[in-house]
Amino acid sequence: MQRSRFLVMLCGMALHAGFVCPAIFADEGMWLFNNLPRKQLAEKYKFDPTAEWTDHVMKSSVRFNSGGSGSFVSSTGLVLTNHHVGADTLHKISTAGHDYYKEGFWAKTHAEEPKAPDLELNVLQSIEDVTGRVNAAVKPEMSSSEAFVARRGVISTIEKESFDKTGLRSDVVTLYQGGQYHLYRYKKYTDIRLVFAPEFEIAFFGGDPDNFEYPRYDLDVCLFRAYEDDKPAKIEHFLKWSKSGAIDGELVFVSGHPGKTDRLNTVAALKYIRDVQAPAMLDWLRRREIMLQQFGERSEEQSRIAKEDLFGVQNSRKAYYGRIAGLQDPEILGRKEAAERAIRAKFDSDPQMKKSYGDAWEKIEQTQKTRREIGVQVNVLEGARGFNSTVFSIARTLVRLAEENEKPNRERLPEFSEAARDSLELGLYSTAPIYDDLELAKLTDSLGYLLEKLGGENPLAQKVMNGKNPAARAAELVGGTKIKDVAERKRIAAGGRKEIAESKDPLIVLARLVDPESRAIRKKLEEQVVEIERQAYAQISRAQFEMHGTSTYPDATFTLRLSYGPVKGYEENGKTIDPLTTMGGAFQHATAHGNRSPWKLPDSWQKHEGDIDPKTPYNFVSTCDIIGGNSGSPVINRAGEFVGIIFDGNIQSLVGDFVYDERQNRAVSVHSASIIESLKKIYGAAPLAEELGH
Amino acid sequence: MQRSRFLVMLCGMALHAGFVCPAIFADEGMWLFNNLPRKQLAEKYKFDPTAEWTDHVMKSSVRFNSGGSGSFVSSTGLVLTNHHVGADTLHKISTAGHDYYKEGFWAKTHAEEPKAPDLELNVLQSIEDVTGRVNAAVKPEMSSSEAFVARRGVISTIEKESFDKTGLRSDVVTLYQGGQYHLYRYKKYTDIRLVFAPEFEIAFFGGDPDNFEYPRYDLDVCLFRAYEDDKPAKIEHFLKWSKSGAIDGELVFVSGHPGKTDRLNTVAALKYIRDVQAPAMLDWLRRREIMLQQFGERSEEQSRIAKEDLFGVQNSRKAYYGRIAGLQDPEILGRKEAAERAIRAKFDSDPQMKKSYGDAWEKIEQTQKTRREIGVQVNVLEGARGFNSTVFSIARTLVRLAEENEKPNRERLPEFSEAARDSLELGLYSTAPIYDDLELAKLTDSLGYLLEKLGGENPLAQKVMNGKNPAARAAELVGGTKIKDVAERKRIAAGGRKEIAESKDPLIVLARLVDPESRAIRKKLEEQVVEIERQAYAQISRAQFEMHGTSTYPDATFTLRLSYGPVKGYEENGKTIDPLTTMGGAFQHATAHGNRSPWKLPDSWQKHEGDIDPKTPYNFVSTCDIIGGNSGSPVINRAGEFVGIIFDGNIQSLVGDFVYDERQNRAVSVHSASIIESLKKIYGAAPLAEELGH
Repeated sequence: MQRSRFLVMLCGMALHAGFVCPAIFADEGMWLFNNLPRKQLAEKYKFDPTAEWTDHVMKSSVRFNSGGSGSFVSSTGLVLTNHHVGADTLHKISTAGHDYYKEGFWAKTHAEEPKAPDLELNVLQSIEDVTGRVNAAVKPEMSSSEAFVARRGVISTIEKESFDKTGLRSDVVTLYQGGQYHLYRYKKYTDIRLVFAPEFEIAFFGGDPDNFEYPRYDLDVCLFRAYEDDKPAKIEHFLKWSKSGAIDGELVFVSGHPGKTDRLNTVAALKYIRDVQAPAMLDWLRRREIMLQQFGERSEEQSRIAKEDLFGVQNSRKAYYGRIAGLQDPEILGRKEAAERAIRAKFDSDPQMKKSYGDAWEKIEQTQKTRREIGVQVNVLEGARGFNSTVFSIARTLVRLAEENEKPNRERLPEFSEAARDSLELGLYSTAPIYDDLELAKLTDSLGYLLEKLGGENPLAQKVMNGKNPAARAAELVGGTKIKDVAERKRIAAGGRKEIAESKDPLIVLARLVDPESRAIRKKLEEQVVEIERQAYAQISRAQFEMHGTSTYPDATFTLRLSYGPVKGYEENGKTIDPLTTMGGAFQHATAHGNRSPWKLPDSWQKHEGDIDPKTPYNFVSTCDIIGGNSGSPVINRAGEFVGIIFDGNIQSLVGDFVYDERQNRAVSVHSASIIESLKKIYGAAPLAEELGH
Repeated sequence: MQRSRFLVMLCGMALHAGFVCPAIFADEGMWLFNNLPRKQLAEKYKFDPTAEWTDHVMKSSVRFNSGGSGSFVSSTGLVLTNHHVGADTLHKISTAGHDYYKEGFWAKTHAEEPKAPDLELNVLQSIEDVTGRVNAAVKPEMSSSEAFVARRGVISTIEKESFDKTGLRSDVVTLYQGGQYHLYRYKKYTDIRLVFAPEFEIAFFGGDPDNFEYPRYDLDVCLFRAYEDDKPAKIEHFLKWSKSGAIDGELVFVSGHPGKTDRLNTVAALKYIRDVQAPAMLDWLRRREIMLQQFGERSEEQSRIAKEDLFGVQNSRKAYYGRIAGLQDPEILGRKEAAERAIRAKFDSDPQMKKSYGDAWEKIEQTQKTRREIGVQVNVLEGARGFNSTVFSIARTLVRLAEENEKPNRERLPEFSEAARDSLELGLYSTAPIYDDLELAKLTDSLGYLLEKLGGENPLAQKVMNGKNPAARAAELVGGTKIKDVAERKRIAAGGRKEIAESKDPLIVLARLVDPESRAIRKKLEEQVVEIERQAYAQISRAQFEMHGTSTYPDATFTLRLSYGPVKGYEENGKTIDPLTTMGGAFQHATAHGNRSPWKLPDSWQKHEGDIDPKTPYNFVSTCDIIGGNSGSPVINRAGEFVGIIFDGNIQSLVGDFVYDERQNRAVSVHSASIIESLKKIYGAAPLAEELGH
């Protein structure tokens, strides 16, 4: 399961960057749609992606702004993604009486399709290289602080111009960590409704123990429908369902949105992740895991309320275990060190290269020191780990909105820019339920975290606590705020700076109190770390481009990428792992674990065991290169047809943040055939299978 | 549940100390048997403990060296303690086929009583003040390093002399953090056999959610029998079972072994715990909790293997939450600060006092800085958090044993002194099972912890890893060692230093590698922190004795203490909590939670619901002042009869590490009547009830 791992990364600050490595092995790569690996595909697979093929795949691919991928699979607006990508919405539309997340759902008519409160889907329409314009705005004589401001300014301006001109969501994306800047334009859908979801038990069959493992037997899918003008959207580009689905050995493609990789990081940057960033993240995840477990144990209803959060945290925790295990492996880091030594030796041997680019590694080594100094404050304050709650997140947005609105567009924090405003408001005015008791548990724990991390004597920490202990302070905040009410949020936002300045709402007061210090630490991070790293990595990138051209792929940035490779098994501890499992295998797997949770099949499956064809292919692995954020990505054959949907990577794929190794790294998918088989034979949803062309 | 919390503390280094506070409130106090609060008892309760009463209670009280308390309850050697104190043994004697810990047990005959592999019970026989002799060995002109060595030397000598003379286990106990030294002599029992345990489900009914909560419904008891010469020991001093058991409002006493409190710490020392020690401990506990959960999820057998460890960790984690919540409460710390200011002002106003004692607080403030500097290394190396496994613990003991054996007794590490040798060997040569897969999971996680804490570039860390990642290194260590075999341990121990030096056993090699640095950091802690604090706290203590006399109690030290107070309910959130629950209430509590785990009553209880008297008192609370280590302590009435057994404190008692507040702090016990009722009516163990006098 990859979604939440990426979500978690989104919630934190972007704390890493990368450098371009020229050596591409095997089927490695998360390729840009405007720079596909035509040579490799032609040589190894005799495949040439035509402009039409590429455009069709691109426009059929969907980004879930909540942190995952998906695809259009019908002209009638059906969007297929993972159950665990839809989970955020499934949870938000659930109540004590109706648990969509746990029990599953099928809307027999359009009228029965419940609307997601805050889901935004993006479909990429075009890519434009704006590197020249961005770089022209940053002058060599500028300090890193000036450079950061100038760069942010020109990016905001480009985005606004594009948005004004096209009406499309327009994002300038930093690629090769500053080597290139591309403008991505997206068509946006914000009226998204639920059509189908299976039960949690089968979507996440095998639970945490089986997560990131293979073989697997999960029906990790759900179907939404995009609406426009209150009608199902008419979709031109959608993926047709393959007759056979994925076949052992065939070449397949994954078109999706990998969230973030650090493959091109310098060794110093990797060691920072290994020794500081990842351990701190893991402590934070384990802390929340225990807190949510304890909360959920209290009652059935609390268990329901906490479940989606808990699942996300467990998923991230397991993913981070793999991440840190990779960095703690001397072989992997040794390979990185050897590669870095080789490239630095090359630079050192060329005086001109040395002069232009040679100090990049030292610069990045320096910024790691700054990261170590400010990391805790960044996480606690700007990363809001000290205030983990929906209400604080709303309060901070309101406080900042009032301040940012008064600035010219180009000077605003990017998330408050005009181009981003619609997306911001979709979240801010979401009608998703806010549960007081969960808010209280999270905020109590998180204020305790703040005290631990900043220290009890820290003046800001003492002001935050207001003379109380974490539990009492959280109760005062959650009990006293009115911003749980959407109308109140709108009222405060309309009142602007004056309203914020005079507000007595305890959460607005808290967000106001914290904001100066939080903004200051963010500024320090941006200007003394991010900008310096961007320049340093850009130096390395440019040198590499000079030496090797741009026939490579940049680190993942939650933008659309294409991966490729065959459906293929692997060897593990001397055993051969078959690439495909079957639906019948799910029943055997349940029996092997005594049918105890999390290996208990849902009633619907037990009831219909005799109805399904047990040989139906169920899950499969391919060598496609993916990472968190790719969850829900369609798997496509040469004909551009849908043959499966990514939902996980195996345990050996978790080091994919840093390296790709074709020997064992595998992407795990649900096979297209099993989706149709279960819709028809288990869920009695033949009309839906028909809408998908079956 | 208090046991494991104390066990965990035992496993770490003694990192705190205390100062004597003269103000005793209400029923506060963990009193020394040779300095009971006669005045308070006489004034408030008109009770005068006679020498006979005191001697009888003392000699009926039992210390479980594994980290808890208990009492003799028959002339035939029966020892009553908590199920969770016996858990360590219940787990060790269990196999895949017979899970004593989960299923419970009753031995109908002596022949059926299984023997604990490494349990030692201590019964206090006498106390002797040796303060003068200890202090005389430490000269004013000595450096703190010399002072530490001299003090340790004289203590070892006193212990050995006493042991040689009496044959009794002889421990010199540091009281008032150095204000006094007393010699405690114990009769020792090492042939301990299991007689009765109920099911885990009822011993820990309500599980983690109900742990440290009240009202409660737990039968947290088990019965062992002490043997001598392969026959049931003949016990002169044992507690007679009261007819009525504890009654609302009556004065009761708790005679047990509170493990450790920090009530008398200076504010600087408390802030160190709040900001550094406790957060680090909680991260460590949560890490292990997740690891053990994941391990246990894999299969029923792995769940069984990990369960006792997991339960201990969860118990400690919940206890530490209460502990840190107390320190993060400005009211509690504010009270401490005010008290400290007052006493320092008094010192400042008296030039002689100021001169003799005035710099004590600054000294302790300084040592907190040293603690911050060395804390991580102490925990990882000497605390062995980097090598968490039974096999490492055995290997380290063997390596040190060979080295310490060559030193004169007075220069040895205390755990290797001659007086402690029997106890050491009982553990070292224990036949308790060692599970390879659990060892592997623990050691893998823990080597990862070592890398995180020391940093991947640390030279010792790199040597420890031997060029491998944590999983591969742990597999090499656990797979390659032979010290899982007791005979091999004995062979190595017999071979002495030469055997250790030449050993190729990977765990011996590892322990040998780590030992110099580990010993060095321990030395630094002992000489630059512990000794300085001991002298500084002793300064404060002596000043207090001068001002107020010694009519107070020292911080807990896992030695026998007496607490007192009435059986009494309390107010919580405006609600009155009754002091007693009933056996019938257990069924209602289960129903209120839908009978789902951990509120599922065992089959035996469900089957015999109609047989028991539902009004039988079950659990009760009293104001007695207890802490971790007190688990299993007998609750005694004025007549010296057994009326209940301590098994927990309520959530408000968890700050008891630092302060006692009679308003809500409550000790939670199993009522004597419910033990008899369940033995007779639920477990069909009438002969056992008869042996207890019923």
